[in-house]
Amino acid sequence: MSNAATTDLLQQRYGEQHAANALNNPVIDHLLNHRSVRSYSDRALPDGTLETLIAAAQSAATSSNLQAWSVIEVRDPARRARLARLANNQRHIEQAPLFLIWLADFSRAQRIASQHYTELRAPSYLDSLLVGSVDAALAAQNAVVAAEALGLGTVYIGALRNDLQAVVDELELPPLVYPVFGLCVGYAATDSAIKPRLPQAVTLHHETYQVDAAQEQRLIGDYEALAAAFSRAQGQNTPGWSEQVINRLKDESALHGRERIGKVLNDQQLALR
Amino acid sequence: MSNAATTDLLQQRYGEQHAANALNNPVIDHLLNHRSVRSYSDRALPDGTLETLIAAAQSAATSSNLQAWSVIEVRDPARRARLARLANNQRHIEQAPLFLIWLADFSRAQRIASQHYTELRAPSYLDSLLVGSVDAALAAQNAVVAAEALGLGTVYIGALRNDLQAVVDELELPPLVYPVFGLCVGYAATDSAIKPRLPQAVTLHHETYQVDAAQEQRLIGDYEALAAAFSRAQGQNTPGWSEQVINRLKDESALHGRERIGKVLNDQQLALR
Repeated sequence: MSNAATTDLLQQRYGEQHAANALNNPVIDHLLNHRSVRSYSDRALPDGTLETLIAAAQSAATSSNLQAWSVIEVRDPARRARLARLANNQRHIEQAPLFLIWLADFSRAQRIASQHYTELRAPSYLDSLLVGSVDAALAAQNAVVAAEALGLGTVYIGALRNDLQAVVDELELPPLVYPVFGLCVGYAATDSAIKPRLPQAVTLHHETYQVDAAQEQRLIGDYEALAAAFSRAQGQNTPGWSEQVINRLKDESALHGRERIGKVLNDQQLALR
Repeated sequence: MSNAATTDLLQQRYGEQHAANALNNPVIDHLLNHRSVRSYSDRALPDGTLETLIAAAQSAATSSNLQAWSVIEVRDPARRARLARLANNQRHIEQAPLFLIWLADFSRAQRIASQHYTELRAPSYLDSLLVGSVDAALAAQNAVVAAEALGLGTVYIGALRNDLQAVVDELELPPLVYPVFGLCVGYAATDSAIKPRLPQAVTLHHETYQVDAAQEQRLIGDYEALAAAFSRAQGQNTPGWSEQVINRLKDESALHGRERIGKVLNDQQLALR
């Protein structure tokens, strides 16, 4: 059964209707306690931080042990500023003491194959794009968990795909490589709160994908209210959650250039078939 | 500086040339200690395990708070057997006490939009396939870390994409949903060891993607030797790592049907443009 600290974390995540049956454990409390950090102090990171995050990242599972990902640490302030401009002007990209860009990478595999006079055909298939992207995501999430264990905050930067060609050029990426997302890491300058999520009953299905429309509508309504109370408590005047989802997915305008990534990936010899 | 336990974990992961500068911490040691488990005992999981894993998963970051993923728990032995057959006959799919299938899901967003008489155009873009797949991967990795904190083992099942249409049918997935991978969870029946990974210097780049070909070749050679020693110690008679990579990526035959996922995703109204 949950102890008081776990119950409190679950209530912040799910409201009063929390997962009452959850088990507790220091590592699990640590995971439940996640919040994204978008404002960083200039406090330097301890020596060894980067090595530690990479070791955690490499300890995650990887499809067929291909290790089809790489990561770039960007320090140069001018390059950071250019990348921030490409990613919707998120100033934490310039501010965070550590900025990492996670790559799906089949170029290394091709270099290995070239030494054996072999051309690889599989990387250009759509499935390989998923293999590399998922590999990078599993690795990065382990780095996030490790960073938080060191008292650091993080935020993912998906907007690095807004102008994918410019980022490919900036990072001098060879064919068979693409940037999946960025990640800022540093000490939080301000407190941030645990963001509520959808009820488990909306996210978890049993046996097959079945939806009870009336129940789903009611549970999403409950979440809408919880998310609105959260926004008010944060002093934010945001639209309701459903409206945010619709605005983000309604048409190309909300993709901020990401509607064009297919072409750039193809130029990188990825997702060709 | 690392303590003795952390140093031991890093040596198992990287060999003698480990990341000597890594910081230590119980959560980080926990991450470094990961190994995949492919043989499960029939010991039942404690009540609340599933709720705990889902709470951890939902605590991970999600792009624009879209929460563009769902998960299906499959218990029915007949369905498990059919899924195992579709995924390269991996018997742990039938054996593990818990089997979860992680989905990229824009169907829920479309149901919300439909209540507002809106058709969503963005989900059919390739970028949305990545958003949903990355969301699912971040969530699942948190579930893996939580499972291991409860003393459980896990293994990802990417082979669930080998015959994607059959899995879509089996799980009755609506348009705008696809299964990214499966995940087995349970108590390990046998010990498994920490698998070595590439040296950090091969995976981590600075500022831009630059490769010193001679250094990379040497470091990959070192890794090849480490991986071979690991395989021998496990009593496995496997080809060298480079050969495994080439065999897995050389041509369509090693994709085991995954060369056809583009068509299935398109039929699911995903990755159309």
